[in-house]
Amino acid sequence: MKPLILISNDDGHEASGLHRLCDVAREFGDVVVVAPDRNASAKGLSLTTTRPLRVREIEHSEGIDIYSCDGTPVDCVKLGVEHFCPRQPDLVLSGINHGSNASINVIYSGTMGIALEAAVLGIGAVGFSLLSHSPKADFTAALPYVRRITSEVLTHGLPAGTALNVNIPCLGSEELRGIRICHQAPARWTDSYERRVDPIGRPYWWLTGKFVCPDPPEGSDEWALRKGYVAVVPVKPDYTSYETIDRLNHMASEEPLR
Amino acid sequence: MKPLILISNDDGHEASGLHRLCDVAREFGDVVVVAPDRNASAKGLSLTTTRPLRVREIEHSEGIDIYSCDGTPVDCVKLGVEHFCPRQPDLVLSGINHGSNASINVIYSGTMGIALEAAVLGIGAVGFSLLSHSPKADFTAALPYVRRITSEVLTHGLPAGTALNVNIPCLGSEELRGIRICHQAPARWTDSYERRVDPIGRPYWWLTGKFVCPDPPEGSDEWALRKGYVAVVPVKPDYTSYETIDRLNHMASEEPLR
Repeated sequence: MKPLILISNDDGHEASGLHRLCDVAREFGDVVVVAPDRNASAKGLSLTTTRPLRVREIEHSEGIDIYSCDGTPVDCVKLGVEHFCPRQPDLVLSGINHGSNASINVIYSGTMGIALEAAVLGIGAVGFSLLSHSPKADFTAALPYVRRITSEVLTHGLPAGTALNVNIPCLGSEELRGIRICHQAPARWTDSYERRVDPIGRPYWWLTGKFVCPDPPEGSDEWALRKGYVAVVPVKPDYTSYETIDRLNHMASEEPLR
Repeated sequence: MKPLILISNDDGHEASGLHRLCDVAREFGDVVVVAPDRNASAKGLSLTTTRPLRVREIEHSEGIDIYSCDGTPVDCVKLGVEHFCPRQPDLVLSGINHGSNASINVIYSGTMGIALEAAVLGIGAVGFSLLSHSPKADFTAALPYVRRITSEVLTHGLPAGTALNVNIPCLGSEELRGIRICHQAPARWTDSYERRVDPIGRPYWWLTGKFVCPDPPEGSDEWALRKGYVAVVPVKPDYTSYETIDRLNHMASEEPLR
């Protein structure tokens, strides 16, 4: 039986990055798409808790079932696995996102929310992102890397509970230099909200901000990307800072507090 | 100068857990609250990208400024630090959440989204959660632990880039046994969406699900909670699975792919 690949994204079911990813995935297996019905960027691992979800069948052609859902990216993958895949998927792919999910962006990313949720569900997963926010971005040079990584994961699997965060520089075929396995670079966004005043004189705030990552350390995703490499970071749905557990033991207590 | 403590939550500015946390925090310093104007549970680290935000001043009494915001929990802490605190806060506190954020819940949690965002911004942070979803939950037995941990963090600080995920069993003072420093227990939610049919015959899906964490390993948060301890997990905003980087080196390539 061919592998079953579930695909989702956070740019919405019409995004061209999603359809380029489908083109690659169908070379490897049967494909089901469950994707948001609109842009759902920066939704992280959020879930829809206060209303029910609706799902619409968009297309059933060339071996691909496409469903759109009015929930978050993580709702899409959970619903997709549970209700819209004919069997447990062998692989979950997410993207190709229009814009970077490297470095600190991973924690806000709906694209990577999908891949991390798949890891929780015990399914191998890869989130792909191209470093261009343009809706008309050219994915041509990226696709051989998407194909290679998808093939590797289908052939060799991934360590249990792990997904991949794959970011691809927006460069021509001649300029991309290969693939590096990396860790997440430390970074932050500053000046995050711009204050404006509406026509009635009341203030409101728009999300904006600058990505700040000076001198990313060697071996980090930002470092590899700036050198022209595709950056692959293995990620797991675990925020524990294991290295600091022992340093906090002064806070432990075997005494009840009253 | 007294420490400045920024407080937020994901249950909304009217939740009693937030006000019990304010009661403790005002013993230690000046307090500013920027919290969602409604329940915003399970929003993780999501950001509001498609519309601007509004903020309303709720109260200015007993040394506490309270603002409500129509954004996500992470919007609240970012906006709070940048626009509503008179200076950089010395500490960010989140909660007290009505319901557990232990184990895998941390990745979906707005309460912990706040604390992780503060860590990104370089501010020490603690997210507190009580293991009861009741809006009328009794926080009495939990408060001495909230007080002790807040005092410890203000006195000793936290390792750079680290926040604390503190979960407190919903037990009486006599039954709580102390504090343990833990790691995140592996777990998942199953049967996540219930299919229903509306009066017109169209299907819709409600989020539901069962938390599955059999035999949590010794040293994990779920293990400590089940023994009656307050579980403290140091967390950092980094999903990298460092231990698997070397195992993926077969995927690296110094050759461009065409």
